[in-house]
Amino acid sequence: MSDIQEISYFIGTDDHDAIDPTEHRKSLAERFARIRAITKELAARLSVEDCMLQSMPDTSPVKWHLAHTTWFFEIFVLERSDPHHIPFDPQYRYLFNSYYDAVGPQYPRARRGLLSRPSLTEIGAYRRTVDEQVLCGLLSGRWPRALLDLIELGLHHEQQHQELILTDIKHGFWGNPDFPAYRMLSVPEIKTAPDHQWIEYEGGRAMVGAASAGFSFDNERPRHAVLLPSFELGSRLVTNGEYAEFIADHGYDRPDLWLSEGWAWRSREHWKAPLYWLHEEKSGRGSPERVFTLGGMRAFDANEPVCHISYFEADAYARWRKCRLPTEHEWECAAVKSGSSRAGTFLDSGLLHPGKTMQNSGIAQLFGDAWEWTQSAYLPYPGFCTAESELGEYNGKFMINQMVLRGGSCATPRDHIRSTYRNFFPPHARWQFSGIRLAR
Amino acid sequence: MSDIQEISYFIGTDDHDAIDPTEHRKSLAERFARIRAITKELAARLSVEDCMLQSMPDTSPVKWHLAHTTWFFEIFVLERSDPHHIPFDPQYRYLFNSYYDAVGPQYPRARRGLLSRPSLTEIGAYRRTVDEQVLCGLLSGRWPRALLDLIELGLHHEQQHQELILTDIKHGFWGNPDFPAYRMLSVPEIKTAPDHQWIEYEGGRAMVGAASAGFSFDNERPRHAVLLPSFELGSRLVTNGEYAEFIADHGYDRPDLWLSEGWAWRSREHWKAPLYWLHEEKSGRGSPERVFTLGGMRAFDANEPVCHISYFEADAYARWRKCRLPTEHEWECAAVKSGSSRAGTFLDSGLLHPGKTMQNSGIAQLFGDAWEWTQSAYLPYPGFCTAESELGEYNGKFMINQMVLRGGSCATPRDHIRSTYRNFFPPHARWQFSGIRLAR
Amino acid sequence: MSDIQEISYFIGTDDHDAIDPTEHRKSLAERFARIRAITKELAARLSVEDCMLQSMPDTSPVKWHLAHTTWFFEIFVLERSDPHHIPFDPQYRYLFNSYYDAVGPQYPRARRGLLSRPSLTEIGAYRRTVDEQVLCGLLSGRWPRALLDLIELGLHHEQQHQELILTDIKHGFWGNPDFPAYRMLSVPEIKTAPDHQWIEYEGGRAMVGAASAGFSFDNERPRHAVLLPSFELGSRLVTNGEYAEFIADHGYDRPDLWLSEGWAWRSREHWKAPLYWLHEEKSGRGSPERVFTLGGMRAFDANEPVCHISYFEADAYARWRKCRLPTEHEWECAAVKSGSSRAGTFLDSGLLHPGKTMQNSGIAQLFGDAWEWTQSAYLPYPGFCTAESELGEYNGKFMINQMVLRGGSCATPRDHIRSTYRNFFPPHARWQFSGIRLAR
Amino acid sequence: MSDIQEISYFIGTDDHDAIDPTEHRKSLAERFARIRAITKELAARLSVEDCMLQSMPDTSPVKWHLAHTTWFFEIFVLERSDPHHIPFDPQYRYLFNSYYDAVGPQYPRARRGLLSRPSLTEIGAYRRTVDEQVLCGLLSGRWPRALLDLIELGLHHEQQHQELILTDIKHGFWGNPDFPAYRMLSVPEIKTAPDHQWIEYEGGRAMVGAASAGFSFDNERPRHAVLLPSFELGSRLVTNGEYAEFIADHGYDRPDLWLSEGWAWRSREHWKAPLYWLHEEKSGRGSPERVFTLGGMRAFDANEPVCHISYFEADAYARWRKCRLPTEHEWECAAVKSGSSRAGTFLDSGLLHPGKTMQNSGIAQLFGDAWEWTQSAYLPYPGFCTAESELGEYNGKFMINQMVLRGGSCATPRDHIRSTYRNFFPPHARWQFSGIRLAR
Repeated sequence: MSDIQEISYFIGTDDHDAIDPTEHRKSLAERFARIRAITKELAARLSVEDCMLQSMPDTSPVKWHLAHTTWFFEIFVLERSDPHHIPFDPQYRYLFNSYYDAVGPQYPRARRGLLSRPSLTEIGAYRRTVDEQVLCGLLSGRWPRALLDLIELGLHHEQQHQELILTDIKHGFWGNPDFPAYRMLSVPEIKTAPDHQWIEYEGGRAMVGAASAGFSFDNERPRHAVLLPSFELGSRLVTNGEYAEFIADHGYDRPDLWLSEGWAWRSREHWKAPLYWLHEEKSGRGSPERVFTLGGMRAFDANEPVCHISYFEADAYARWRKCRLPTEHEWECAAVKSGSSRAGTFLDSGLLHPGKTMQNSGIAQLFGDAWEWTQSAYLPYPGFCTAESELGEYNGKFMINQMVLRGGSCATPRDHIRSTYRNFFPPHARWQFSGIRLAR
Repeated sequence: MSDIQEISYFIGTDDHDAIDPTEHRKSLAERFARIRAITKELAARLSVEDCMLQSMPDTSPVKWHLAHTTWFFEIFVLERSDPHHIPFDPQYRYLFNSYYDAVGPQYPRARRGLLSRPSLTEIGAYRRTVDEQVLCGLLSGRWPRALLDLIELGLHHEQQHQELILTDIKHGFWGNPDFPAYRMLSVPEIKTAPDHQWIEYEGGRAMVGAASAGFSFDNERPRHAVLLPSFELGSRLVTNGEYAEFIADHGYDRPDLWLSEGWAWRSREHWKAPLYWLHEEKSGRGSPERVFTLGGMRAFDANEPVCHISYFEADAYARWRKCRLPTEHEWECAAVKSGSSRAGTFLDSGLLHPGKTMQNSGIAQLFGDAWEWTQSAYLPYPGFCTAESELGEYNGKFMINQMVLRGGSCATPRDHIRSTYRNFFPPHARWQFSGIRLAR
Repeated sequence: MSDIQEISYFIGTDDHDAIDPTEHRKSLAERFARIRAITKELAARLSVEDCMLQSMPDTSPVKWHLAHTTWFFEIFVLERSDPHHIPFDPQYRYLFNSYYDAVGPQYPRARRGLLSRPSLTEIGAYRRTVDEQVLCGLLSGRWPRALLDLIELGLHHEQQHQELILTDIKHGFWGNPDFPAYRMLSVPEIKTAPDHQWIEYEGGRAMVGAASAGFSFDNERPRHAVLLPSFELGSRLVTNGEYAEFIADHGYDRPDLWLSEGWAWRSREHWKAPLYWLHEEKSGRGSPERVFTLGGMRAFDANEPVCHISYFEADAYARWRKCRLPTEHEWECAAVKSGSSRAGTFLDSGLLHPGKTMQNSGIAQLFGDAWEWTQSAYLPYPGFCTAESELGEYNGKFMINQMVLRGGSCATPRDHIRSTYRNFFPPHARWQFSGIRLAR
Repeated sequence: MSDIQEISYFIGTDDHDAIDPTEHRKSLAERFARIRAITKELAARLSVEDCMLQSMPDTSPVKWHLAHTTWFFEIFVLERSDPHHIPFDPQYRYLFNSYYDAVGPQYPRARRGLLSRPSLTEIGAYRRTVDEQVLCGLLSGRWPRALLDLIELGLHHEQQHQELILTDIKHGFWGNPDFPAYRMLSVPEIKTAPDHQWIEYEGGRAMVGAASAGFSFDNERPRHAVLLPSFELGSRLVTNGEYAEFIADHGYDRPDLWLSEGWAWRSREHWKAPLYWLHEEKSGRGSPERVFTLGGMRAFDANEPVCHISYFEADAYARWRKCRLPTEHEWECAAVKSGSSRAGTFLDSGLLHPGKTMQNSGIAQLFGDAWEWTQSAYLPYPGFCTAESELGEYNGKFMINQMVLRGGSCATPRDHIRSTYRNFFPPHARWQFSGIRLAR
């Protein structure tokens, strides 16, 4: 079972001695049950037909997310726990493999929406069966610590897909002329956002990245020192109203504000505003009448954080303000300094939309509400190395042509995020809850 | 209500006097109920998820077919019958309009598979509601003859979509690595196909096209004279076994046998055999091990008619045999001469796969089993004119870059087909039950 | 040398006895020298750089035309005349093969503009060398009649490329923001076009296609009988002014006037007027300020025939006029009846632009000025068969998804055209001198 | 003339006082004449037709390079020197603008090969005219220092295009089945490459980036401190022979070695070896028979540095060797430590192909031979800001989705390169002389 060992890369080995094994198993089982139930709950409001939607190759049907997260446990935990494991369905190995070449070939990503079979009901049974087997093995006390660490990894993986379930179904519903709501959401009352202020940070030598204790993804490691110049960060996320000023000032029509490749995307895709803004009159510039949310169409609220913008838009906005975006290290240092308190709007709140801060002093909204584009490319940390097993494919092979986002969003489970957490998307991606914090 | 009048173009006005109005209404109502029920039945075996499948832009989800055929009655019958007609759902006018620009804009064809809403249940309610309203109006006796003729047209339209439901779901299931069956089908016993013989036809002046009595589509009119040289037709459809000889003789690798544009398609799409043939070893030449049918995977049967081939393949095969394909007029004359008896396998048989003829003399399989590609381009007959209303868009605007097919297939309702019936598809289309009859 | 024999398919064998062999050789040599010289002359006004232009995959560089027409004589005449023929350059077999799979593989069509080598100078030497060898063999008296027939074919082929040289360079220059002129052309004085009248033709049985005497392409054969209904043709080509009325009446914005596929092209390509019309203000509807010609930009002249339109536009225009386009057989019968006198503007005139007729009665402009789109698909005549040799690829393999044009244009050599001549292009093609004659 | 001032961003202002103005003018004039002459010389071996070649949108015709580098001086120097400057041709402002939106719209990049006019002769005249005007103004002594700095910038810009002329024509000739040589090159004798050794570097705080004295591009600034861990660099570039081992070991068939996006490129483009390697048998794995060079086809030499590979290939190779690529800062520190002596093969040598080192100890080939892919994304240095004028577009707007290359190549002018020089290309680019140095 030596190939299980290296997965401990994800979990600091320091922890292993510190924790009572029985307590650890119990606590893990409890979390397993809870997190898996949340995923199921997220899908519960959707019809069988909704769960089949795949509106673009970047997104996946909810049914596929439900199956793939289960596949993860079956392939990486159950198969390793028992060389005689009988697969729930041998075809699933292929159908629900996302991108693990070492596991085998993959059903084409862009065609996931064409799998009417297996049915949602069958996927439900798949989930129940795997859940039982995992819990049974876990509680048996016979599984080695390395397998438990794989379950830990699987839960963090599951939480990533919880967020994707929401962002993907939002995009799927956006393509329907009736603009369906994922569920009824109460519309927050109108409150004026606090002033945008600058928070100063002194430069110097700083440590970034995840320490060896506790769970973290391989891409957060190793912890290492960096040199930072002095910098300032905006006190809160940029609001819809502020972003509308950029549009009103012809921000989408001035190539000097844009990266060259961003301008090409804007032109090809006819971007004139963030994704999900709806101008009744097409030529409308500035604030739209309505914005599409997981609660359906809602009146435009100038005080909310702007989101669903690409890196290119975030960067152009910052340039227009004569500022820039933070680097991921600047962001991390500010987060650590702020105490890393995860105070913003997360999935757990049920709001499913970025919240407004009322905080008048200090730095706000570092966590939750909307992911913050940084000007850091998603690259390996010095000394980064991947696990030898299939799980080496988890993060490393995507380290090109993507930018780092930090802090989580209103669709992220609160206990999933960390100061060292590195999310990443190509600079043109817009369907995530991605927003802007300024730096200078 | 003058705009209803011209629809009588589809129905020979000669009929109007000949038939007792009350009898006509009763008989029409009976057929309406029966044909609409068949459509529903065709969908009944499919899961909610299956009904959402759209595997390529040319195909449509079954749910969409169910809705669109209903839309046809609502827009062209109910709306015209009552200026105050309250739509079942105002959005449907847009969502389920196939291509009638005169009715209004259309939801993009290629995105029909992304409509998780309205649900299949709602479409069921739509069908029931419209059915009741049509039957009620029809039996009331207050509807003018022109409206009745529109119902007649709607029923023929419905039957066209019955065939498409089957060909489209077949294509959708083909994309699933489990190759689901639409339903269990009994596999016919192995019988050797009768010899391929040549049937002679004398040339001369012949009348083709639909007479003014009885229903026909506008594209079958007007009836007119043509000059035919003497010709011979193959006594039956080309079989899988015969077609496999073409493949074994490198038919897919010899550009001299192919139309230039066909060769380009073959190269771009990597055609090596008819659609739905499955060679376990990719390089396999000649007969495959298995063929995908609406009953799932089935062993290759050399005696069945070949089908699911493009015009390009039919034409290349004929050239390889030093023959050609028939013209549509040759086919029609042979069909008329044979008595137009619709003896082949149709939808009604429930076989859902082309049948084998046992007929040893004379011409066989003119009707049913597989559509026969002709070497005639789909063009207007001399004197063709379209209806002035929206229904003018039914056929005429497709008269370019398509070839005529004749005779119907195993997925065509038997009472839908005629000797004068002109089906049409672009020469690269392969997902219909399209086969080959030779001529020379 | 049996494989040379079948080429006589292009030349009626009836001729062979009738003509004195020595006279025939002399006359053929004289025509060979004259026609080859014209091609050279057409290129002489262009710079070395102009001759490399390939502005889209459908067009070819002038240098390529010069080489390919020479290749035709080398491959089909010189190689067959002498099994020990030493090629001018062995690579040319590949580089300048247009589409003859039987001759061997072909340099990719879309990349012809990337051949900076061989140079134009080398192609000039190639032409001179092959010309000498052909003339030498031809005048030697030792070549069989079949080889002479191949030279005849090569000359007709050469003339087709003379027209393409002009249409291709016109398209190439159109892409240059300076709109260069191919050469200075005198602008014809303004004359009002005669009224558009209807010329009646009685229907009945008619013979169409080329007789066995004299040269014709295989696609014009065999001569056969057709039945024609009575019909009327417009007395002249449709003018720019008449076409501008169609545009002013929103002809490009009304889908009901267009074939469905044509509407898709118009939308994708943003067609708002014929190719080469230039509206200074983009939104301009109706007559443009200027039109691009081989003489450069020229003021719009409402009385000239409209040209550079696709079949889709011709068809939409005819529908808007409540007329239709002629069939190719109607056109041919009218041409024969008119005496087939080739009275219009041809390449020989040097005008290089469609001319205006002044003829006030009878049918005008059947020949020359602009090719006339017919509503006939380009299909084989009954009994058509191709030559067995490589030359079988000359025409037959293009008989799909193309429409027939008749009558020649201002870029066609006058002695190249015939009443039975069938030109063909896909319905979306616009870069030829293609115009409209109405029928009803 | 305030807008000229900021260009001094490119030139350290410290220099201004230190240099005698007259001497500076003279020396600049001498360099201007020399560098401009080199460009002309590079094009002199090419035919008029060669100079029109554009084999892909990324490359440009040599004629375009000749014009654009001249345009740079006309727009940024002559226009600014004299508000009444009469343009050589007003259209050139548009035709030869590469990407400066602030200067105005640009002729589409992908269509540069379609400009047969202006002719190469006219571009020659354009060069001579602008050269005279620049020299005249420069020597007049009346131009302010800021204008002189713009000339300096223009010369560095010119040198960048000298390299592109060679890489672009190489790619253009590669598409010609005759594989023409740019010019005859002597083939170096076979010498065994020295062993690959590891050179150790101690980590710590280091300064990187260009100091304020001397010319540098904006992207090299500001100079700033970084923290480096200890590292090792390969003693020389990776050779063809070493790279062939990677291929022989199925390096192109193992997705685990590749970045995910790199694997997609490899699959779509069918990469099996570096660009310009020619295997006679397509399936050949390992060393090819021949390699295409600017001297035409040449036998494979295992001891030469591998080049013409993408970042994806460099990265996969490094992973296969269980190493990694250097960061740009590691490379720069090593270069500084080595004394920055530019000892490798540069454009000046006339070899036009990467050279082989014979150096047996210490680090070799840091400069020249082949650009070295680093694992650093091309991003702004901390505190980077762009010039306010049009020249702000020079570098900054490309800082996304590109990777940094260091050290120059055999096509780079020796006096163009520096230790701080940052070249950049998208990770899939292969047509530059780009190679590999390992790190760990």
